[in-house]
Amino acid sequence: MAKTVKFITFEGGEGSGKSTHIEHLVTRLRQEGYHVLIAREPGGTEVGEQIRHILQYSKQSAAMVPETELLLFCASRAQLVREVIQPALDDGTIVICDRFLDSTEAYQGHGGGVPRDRLRDLHRLIAGDFLPDLTLILDLPVELGLQRAQAHTRFERMGRDFHERMRSGFLDIGQREQRRCVVIDAREELAAVSLAVKAAVRERLGAPL
Amino acid sequence: MAKTVKFITFEGGEGSGKSTHIEHLVTRLRQEGYHVLIAREPGGTEVGEQIRHILQYSKQSAAMVPETELLLFCASRAQLVREVIQPALDDGTIVICDRFLDSTEAYQGHGGGVPRDRLRDLHRLIAGDFLPDLTLILDLPVELGLQRAQAHTRFERMGRDFHERMRSGFLDIGQREQRRCVVIDAREELAAVSLAVKAAVRERLGAPL
Repeated sequence: MAKTVKFITFEGGEGSGKSTHIEHLVTRLRQEGYHVLIAREPGGTEVGEQIRHILQYSKQSAAMVPETELLLFCASRAQLVREVIQPALDDGTIVICDRFLDSTEAYQGHGGGVPRDRLRDLHRLIAGDFLPDLTLILDLPVELGLQRAQAHTRFERMGRDFHERMRSGFLDIGQREQRRCVVIDAREELAAVSLAVKAAVRERLGAPL
Repeated sequence: MAKTVKFITFEGGEGSGKSTHIEHLVTRLRQEGYHVLIAREPGGTEVGEQIRHILQYSKQSAAMVPETELLLFCASRAQLVREVIQPALDDGTIVICDRFLDSTEAYQGHGGGVPRDRLRDLHRLIAGDFLPDLTLILDLPVELGLQRAQAHTRFERMGRDFHERMRSGFLDIGQREQRRCVVIDAREELAAVSLAVKAAVRERLGAPL
């Protein structure tokens, strides 16, 4: 079997079911004999997990300014790309990442108001021209996400407006970068969404799933 | 006494005596009745000290990529500027900071090879147009810095070339931004350097020292 060397990211708001669908996809790909590596943001490296800890800790104290939050996410990503993602891809492994640069645009850009060209400069610093081969955006109305999400407190603290801006941010990205992104309607039943994910991977990457 | 609202930074390589001269200057300013706050980079805030911990921890493991290091320094600075420096300056306090943006240019730019326009973009993201009112660059030949520095291991690990590039980076900055920077010859006796520091503060800021 010819190896497909690909980098797939999952994006979407709270409660959109990313972890579940990543799990399903990984199981399926492994059944087909692919080497698959799952990464998560922030984190995924020793340094990145320490950064994740600061980000999570600070969610409670709420003293962190948005620019610091943004730069910490980017620091974690820079490490993840170089230490984990690139070497794995070079090795012929499929890498699946739970959140990547589009979350930064949706959260800190659309949600938090950081101008998009600043974010683009930052991404260039982190990873040059490196982009995912396929990005699956799991789209869900904010209200439904709230019902499904377990992290109610945080969700509510950020406010409904924030999540609406974030959702439309993800949809903007999907519209703007159609070659890379597929928007998947996550209102459907789990099995239907899972099928849509597999279909996107099959079509875009030529992987037999 | 009219209050002088100013932001002073100290820059220079290892062993250049920044901490000692900051201490001397602060003592003198306080004797004159000024409110003075000392900040340090990385660190100086709760979030920043956590970041400092990651940076120091990783010095040993050496697994951290340069981009991650750079972004962590910047994350700490973004927090320091907004949480500590700006509010203190608004309050009429003199703020003295041990390292600031010029260290980033010297270490990660001249030393580590990150292009200067990237660093400028980053600084704009962190702090907009915010710059120190006065920057004292303590200049020392690399050899002499090595003899004086206590952190021999790290110094040697980075290599002599790195420190030479860093030194000439600081001198470049001093040359380029003469309105803001004063280069002080740190080869002199402690007392002489301390006098030169006070003279620069007096001349540039009109503070009677």
